[in-house]
Parts: sequence; structure tokens; C-alpha cells
Amino acid sequence: MIVNGIGRSVPEIIEGYKKIVPYSSPHGTDPHPYRAQTSAGKVLPGEKKLLPDLKTAIRFCGLEDGMTVSFHHHFRNGDQVVNLVLEAAAEMGLKELKVAMSSIFPVHSPLAGHIASGVVGGLSCNYMLGPVAEAMSGGAFPFPVIFRTHGGRDRAIQTGEEKIDVAFIAASAADEAGNFNGVNGPSACGSLGYCLTDCRFAKKVVVLTDNLAPYPLIPASADETLIDFVVRIEKVGDPAGITTGAVKEVHDPLRLKLARWAVDVIEASGLLQDGISFQTGTGGASLAAAGFLREKMEQHKITGSFGMGGVTGHMAGLLSEGFFRAVLDTQSFDQKAIASLRDNPRHVEISSDRYANPHNKGCAVNRLDAMILSAIEVDTAFNVNVHTASDGRVMGGSGGHADTAAGSKLAVVVAPSVRKNIPIIIDRVHTVTTPGETIDCLVTEHGISVNPRRADLLNDLQGAGLPLIDIHDLKAEVDKKTGCPGLPEVSEKIVAVVEYRDGSVIDVIRALE
Amino acid sequence: MIVNGIGRSVPEIIEGYKKIVPYSSPHGTDPHPYRAQTSAGKVLPGEKKLLPDLKTAIRFCGLEDGMTVSFHHHFRNGDQVVNLVLEAAAEMGLKELKVAMSSIFPVHSPLAGHIASGVVGGLSCNYMLGPVAEAMSGGAFPFPVIFRTHGGRDRAIQTGEEKIDVAFIAASAADEAGNFNGVNGPSACGSLGYCLTDCRFAKKVVVLTDNLAPYPLIPASADETLIDFVVRIEKVGDPAGITTGAVKEVHDPLRLKLARWAVDVIEASGLLQDGISFQTGTGGASLAAAGFLREKMEQHKITGSFGMGGVTGHMAGLLSEGFFRAVLDTQSFDQKAIASLRDNPRHVEISSDRYANPHNKGCAVNRLDAMILSAIEVDTAFNVNVHTASDGRVMGGSGGHADTAAGSKLAVVVAPSVRKNIPIIIDRVHTVTTPGETIDCLVTEHGISVNPRRADLLNDLQGAGLPLIDIHDLKAEVDKKTGCPGLPEVSEKIVAVVEYRDGSVIDVIRALE
Repeated sequence: MIVNGIGRSVPEIIEGYKKIVPYSSPHGTDPHPYRAQTSAGKVLPGEKKLLPDLKTAIRFCGLEDGMTVSFHHHFRNGDQVVNLVLEAAAEMGLKELKVAMSSIFPVHSPLAGHIASGVVGGLSCNYMLGPVAEAMSGGAFPFPVIFRTHGGRDRAIQTGEEKIDVAFIAASAADEAGNFNGVNGPSACGSLGYCLTDCRFAKKVVVLTDNLAPYPLIPASADETLIDFVVRIEKVGDPAGITTGAVKEVHDPLRLKLARWAVDVIEASGLLQDGISFQTGTGGASLAAAGFLREKMEQHKITGSFGMGGVTGHMAGLLSEGFFRAVLDTQSFDQKAIASLRDNPRHVEISSDRYANPHNKGCAVNRLDAMILSAIEVDTAFNVNVHTASDGRVMGGSGGHADTAAGSKLAVVVAPSVRKNIPIIIDRVHTVTTPGETIDCLVTEHGISVNPRRADLLNDLQGAGLPLIDIHDLKAEVDKKTGCPGLPEVSEKIVAVVEYRDGSVIDVIRALE
Repeated sequence: MIVNGIGRSVPEIIEGYKKIVPYSSPHGTDPHPYRAQTSAGKVLPGEKKLLPDLKTAIRFCGLEDGMTVSFHHHFRNGDQVVNLVLEAAAEMGLKELKVAMSSIFPVHSPLAGHIASGVVGGLSCNYMLGPVAEAMSGGAFPFPVIFRTHGGRDRAIQTGEEKIDVAFIAASAADEAGNFNGVNGPSACGSLGYCLTDCRFAKKVVVLTDNLAPYPLIPASADETLIDFVVRIEKVGDPAGITTGAVKEVHDPLRLKLARWAVDVIEASGLLQDGISFQTGTGGASLAAAGFLREKMEQHKITGSFGMGGVTGHMAGLLSEGFFRAVLDTQSFDQKAIASLRDNPRHVEISSDRYANPHNKGCAVNRLDAMILSAIEVDTAFNVNVHTASDGRVMGGSGGHADTAAGSKLAVVVAPSVRKNIPIIIDRVHTVTTPGETIDCLVTEHGISVNPRRADLLNDLQGAGLPLIDIHDLKAEVDKKTGCPGLPEVSEKIVAVVEYRDGSVIDVIRALE
């Protein structure tokens, strides 16, 4: 076993996983100097990319046993493409496919069956919720799943750690040359930011669409130079399924109080200035914070530079009303955000590469002033877990959590200290998603706990008269209420490797007993 | 010597040039299966890309003797960046730099001096006009220049044949993270389509701008993930210099007649239908053709799919008035086109990769119905020369000439048969830019000559009652007027290698006696 830079024991070798680089520090890993080579092509005038059906496309791509197929998750729980492609692959007798998905939702439950039957023999993702997560947590998969961050996934694709043979794109509009987008058509889902690096680095790219448009489709999220084949299908996804999962509105007084304090922290830190940039996660309290931020900006007559993220209608409203000059969007969370991306030229689709890849020449998370994050668990070293529930079952993943925490000037975690009588503030999180050294403070209903690394911030908050509480005192308060429950009982079997955004291993997840 | 597929003798070895692949046929070369590796990076939060001056940027890029620097030509004869960078390099004592420019204009005359002094030791471009061309034609350069096509340049950059160490971008707007465009700011020049592959494949990329804008700049022609450094300079270029060179309006009756016939050919060919796509070169007659096409489209109540190219205000007008659904723009030729690109979402900037690279997964020239081309010389095999004047001096280059001829369904060359008593229709063009097998017909004041490969087209034009003339009869007519002048007298010294778009050698240019 190796003890990594955050004190987690990680085996020296994990079967079915690459050579381990233990996590060292947030910016401790140097990039591979060169990116993986990408595939050229040759398309003659008059040559057709439009194929009659999915199976023909799979055949034309030369997909074989053991190869890697990739998918993106913009339809979230409304996605129909992943199941369709894997079903076709199963019917074609393919085996041991590796699946590289940006995120997995309950709708993807058939994937667990494809793993059981051997059609799928490997899996990576940035987030996982539902039956596939349950099956994995129970130790049902014969391989370790690789968890990455949104930025880390693009990094891994670019270095060739994640070599994609065939990328499948679910597009609400495409032309027969392969230009595609997510903003036009009856299944419009908004930004397609998570599949753009796939398009550039996959050997073959298949665009699936339920809305074939005349050439040239405008706008084009990725263009014809990168696309091998186009297939028209009945339906790529149900936009109504986008809002299930991580996105929740919130009205209870506790969470609203936390949201308000989070914005007070931003104000006290001195970042609430003209040009402020801001992102919230999709947890209830962090979404509510956007509303309070708007009040403050109005009060102080401040215009922000950009809001970013998974973008909600709320953020789109801040843009249209002039509170921000721009919105940078990797995933649109509702119809209002989708319409804004389509119609407002200041609302821009960005790739997850531009969003958060730590090993390109600059990513937008580095330009964030304030980031409001949620947590399943936080420990006294400020490490955050958004992978596993208190009982050890997987119910999430980093997404952009670790990326934005590392990039932003101020990373504020907002969470109640107790949920359903289970303590959220503990000695040691079950799984480290985001290292404490990238978290600046934690807001709970007991007050604000500042990471000791940020003496300057502590000063600012004291000066502003905000309610402060040392994180150890906070934990003691919580323990008084809930007692100190035992850790989840796990076996030796590693069911998932948690990569930090730079590809180092920050933690592993073991099967439940 | 090798005789290539178009009957030109090419040496087996040319000193200072890669291993020769002789031209075989328009689509005869298979692509390298993989593209060159690109550089990753690592930028920490708070790290600055904005440098105080150009020399600091050159130093930070690690530019050394013998390395390759690249430039784009969107400011054409108004460009100020090339001279500035080479002057700085000279002052810094750099030697034997290789210069990869998309095009060279009279304003770049200092380049000839930098070659004479040894600061520059290699040169490639797609087009060359002015003192640099004069010096090269006279044999003044100690290396052969490489001429490519617009699509071929991107192909060569992507394969690594043209390895760029540092790309310099002249941007009319940029933010300090490196997001840039050509549509905002006092020096707006429109599309920056020719530098986008440079940004992706160069080891280092420096954005020069005279208009530093707040982050995030929208739109971004290329984004922060690709840019190493940003430098603010006094002026990147003079947009008034864009229209000099290739772009000429025309009013004389001869050229207007040719333009009208060219459009008659399109109509007779059956391509004048809803969804027609169309491009003209920048010669006078081909620009006038766009006007006549508009009349026809109005008359037949036809809406085109897209216009493309170097885009003039004329083309922008066709878009705004609904004659086309889209304009695809690699270079904006005047203020009206620049404003249209900025303001009309259906007027889209495209990379030269998407425009014309034969070895990607699909380029837009393959989607062109009709292409109207100009010529300096045409021979009886329909080979076209737009590189050298009748006296052998270089005064142009392919640009997109060979690309569009190869991609389009109908490539119509429009030229007077005689210019200043010099015959344009000859037995053998001095330099082959575009192979005759990709040219469908030639329009001169004597009538329309159809390439014998296009018996179908000949039929169509006969049916439409258009004035036809066999190309050999045409040549005889011309000879009667002008006599048959001798070929330019050249030495053995090769001053330039003319690559076809696929990287094969279609011709060489020799020094004048």
C-alpha cells in the first residue's frame, strides 16, 4: 500500500487499472508534454456520411471486442442513446467493450445487465447515480470503475489514458455532413460541452440525431471535419429527464440560511466587486445562493463578468437582466437555460476542456472568483466527499467539484451539519472527492468554519462579524446531537478508483460487506 | 527527374525540401492515418499570460535559431504583425527562422531583407505578391519556397510536415486569457479562419492585439485552452489594406459578359436549384458573376444553401437579403463583410481546415455546387496557372483555387483570352496551380470550352444554346491575334516547389534567367 498526499492508503497495483500515480497536491502533477495523436480522414466530394441505421454505423466504425465507446450525459436521466447503442452492440455479439461516459443516471440501468453478460468489460465516468451505482457498490462488477472529474476526463482523453475508439453523440440537430448542436430541434438539450473533446480525439465519431437539418447547420458545436457518420434515430433523449438527479430547487429555511451566509462570505472576502465571476453547484442551497447574490449585486450596483457551470434558468436570468456579462455553459439544466443558450449570444457553449482541464493552456475554472459547492460529507481536514453516502454506497461523483475547488479564488462548501440524524461533519470522509487544501470554508447552520490555510479569509469574516466556528468545535457540536457513528463496513475488493483531476489516485472505493 | 501525373518533370531530390511525392491525381494520395501530436500545457490559477512586450513573449516561447514561426494574412496588405515580429527577432539576433505564412503581400517587403541577412532561412505560403515574390523569382533566396493551397497548408500543419514552433496571431480583440477574435475593436478584419489550425498545432501561440477586452471575450475564434501568451501592441493592422491585392471590382463590358456566361453555364448545368451553394474567386469577372447569379435566383425564386470563401460585401448582401441561408467565411474582404460576420449569426467564421483540408473527415469545398475561378493562364489540358505571370515572375498562388476546383461539382474558369496582347490560352501553362482534371469548363469572350471529361456538361450547354468552342480552336483563335510567344526563359535553379493540396508536388518554379 502507498499512502498518498492526503493520507489515503492506495494499493500499489490495482488489477484492471493503469500504473498508479498517488495524489500529491492540487497542482502537483506535470502534464504529459504532448497530447495523443488524433485521426485524420479523407472524404471525397459526394461521399455520404448519412447511414441507414445504428448497426451499420457500428460496423462501418470497425467496432470490435475490447474497444472503447464514449458517451456524454447532457440528457441526464432522459438519455436514450447509451441504452440504444449498447443494446445494438449486444445484439451484434460484441464483448468486453469499455464504456467511457461522462455521467451515469438511473435511466442507464441496462448497463448493469450488459456488464453482467460480458458485453461491457470496463467503465469510466465522472458521476454515477441509480442502479448501476448500486450494483457497483455491491461488488457486482468484475473490474474497477474509474471515477474522474469533468476536467480530468478531458485531460485523460487528450493524453491517451482514455483512448476512445468510437464516440457516440446525441444531438438534437445535425446535418448530413455531421455538423451538430444541442440547441435546435424538438429534443433540444442545450450545451453539448462534454462531448467536444471526444469528437476531437476519438478514432471514429458517430452523430445520432432525431432532427436532420439542411447543410450547413448553424451553430455547430463540433463541425464536419471531426465527424465520420450520421444516423437518424427516432429520439435521442427526453429533455424532461435533464432536471432529475442533481438539480433541486430548495425552499426550507435551513438551506436558505446557509445560502445567505455563503453569499455573506463572498461579500466579506472582498470578491463582491465589479467583474465578479461565480458558479454554484446543483445542490439546493448552492442554487439558492445565486438568488441572494443577485440581491447583493443589485444593492451594490455591481456587474459580474461571468457565471459558469451547469447552467440553470436562474443563471440565464442573471445574464439577461445584466447581472453578468457572460455565461459559460457546459450543461444546460432546464428549458430556460436551453433557450438562453440558443438565443443570447452572451450565453456561450464551452467544452469541458475549456471549463476545467488542468493540463491545457488555460481553463475557465481558474478565472472563477467564487464557487459554491455542496457536500455529502466534510471532514475536519476540509476534505469533501460527494461520491459515497454515509452507508458507503456510491450516489454521485465529482463532476466539476474538485475542478472548481482547485481553480476558484474562494471555494465555499455549503451543507447542513446533519441529515436525517446522520452527521455530515466527521473525522474522516468515507471517500475523498475534493482535497481539503482546495476548500476555503464550510458553511453549516452552526456557522462558518474557515480552513486554517486561509488566515486572511478568517480575518475578513471576523471583521464582517459573521458567525465563525472552528471545524473541530463544529464536529463536537454535531457529535453531541448524533453520536459518532461507525464507518461503513467494506470488504477488501476495490470497486472504483477515484482519480483527481490530474490523473493521480486520490482515493479508492471498496465493495460494501 | 520524375514525370508526375500531370506531365511535369520534377527532380527526385530538391535540396532543402522533404522527400518528394509526385502529384498523381486529384484524390490520389491517402492521408497520414494520424495527425501530429499537439502540446499540452499547465496554467495555474492566477498565472498571467499577458506579457509587457513582444520580445518578452518571443523569449518566453523559447524561440531559437532554425525554428518555425507562423502568421496568417487576414489583414493582407494592411498587416503590421509579420514585420514587427521579424524585426524583433532580428534585433534579438535570431537566425535561420522558418516562416510559415498563409499569404505574402507588398507590405511584407522587409521579409526579403530578413532572408538576405539570414534572419529568415525558410518560407512557405499559399500566395505571394510584391517585392518578396520579385526577389524570389529572381533567384535571390538560398532555399526553395514551398507553395501550398489553403487546404493543403492546414493538412501539412496537421501531419507535422509544417511543424510550427510559435504561431503569432494578429487579433483585433483579445482578453488576457487569450480568447480572441477579428470582429471587435478598431482594427476589426473579420474572419480569422486561416490561423485556427496554427493555434491548435503550434507548440506555442502568442496573440497580439491592439484591443484588450475584458474576460471572457465573446465570440472567441480560438479559446484560452490554446493560447500561451498575450501581448498588447499599438496596432495589429490596417483594415483598409485588406482590399488591395486580389480583390478588384470590375465594370468593363468584356468581363461582365464573361461573368454572365459563367452564370449561364451554372444554370444550364442544372445546378441552379433551391439549395445551390456557390463561391467566387476574387478576380473581377468572378465577383461580377455573383451579381448575375442573384438576378437568376430572384427570377427563379431560388434560395441557396451557402456562399463561401473569401467573403465580400456582395456575398454578405446576398445573405442578408435571403438569397442564401448561410455564409461560410475564412477571410472577410471589406467592411460590409466584417460587419455581417459580427452581426449576422448565419454568417459564420470557419477554419481553413473546415474550408478545404482534403485530409480531415470532411471539408466544405466538397459541398460546393458551383465555383467560379480566375486564371493567369489556362492550357489546352485545362490546367490553370495562378502562380506566375507570362514572363515567369511569381505574382500569386493557389490560395483556395486548387481546393475549390477539386471539391466543387462545377468549376468554371473565367478569363479573357488575351491580356495586353499576351495570350492567356496556351499549350502549356508556365506553372500548374490547378490540374485540368478538376476544371469543368473555361469561359472566354470567344465562348465556352468544356473539358472533354465532362461530356454531360457539354450536352447540357449545347441544349441551352450557349456559345461553345473547342479549347484547341480557342487557342488557334488566340494565336491568330497574338502570335505564339515563347515561354519565359528560366534557369535550372528551383526557387519554389508547388504542392498540390494533398502534399504531392504538382510543379516547380525556376529562377528567371
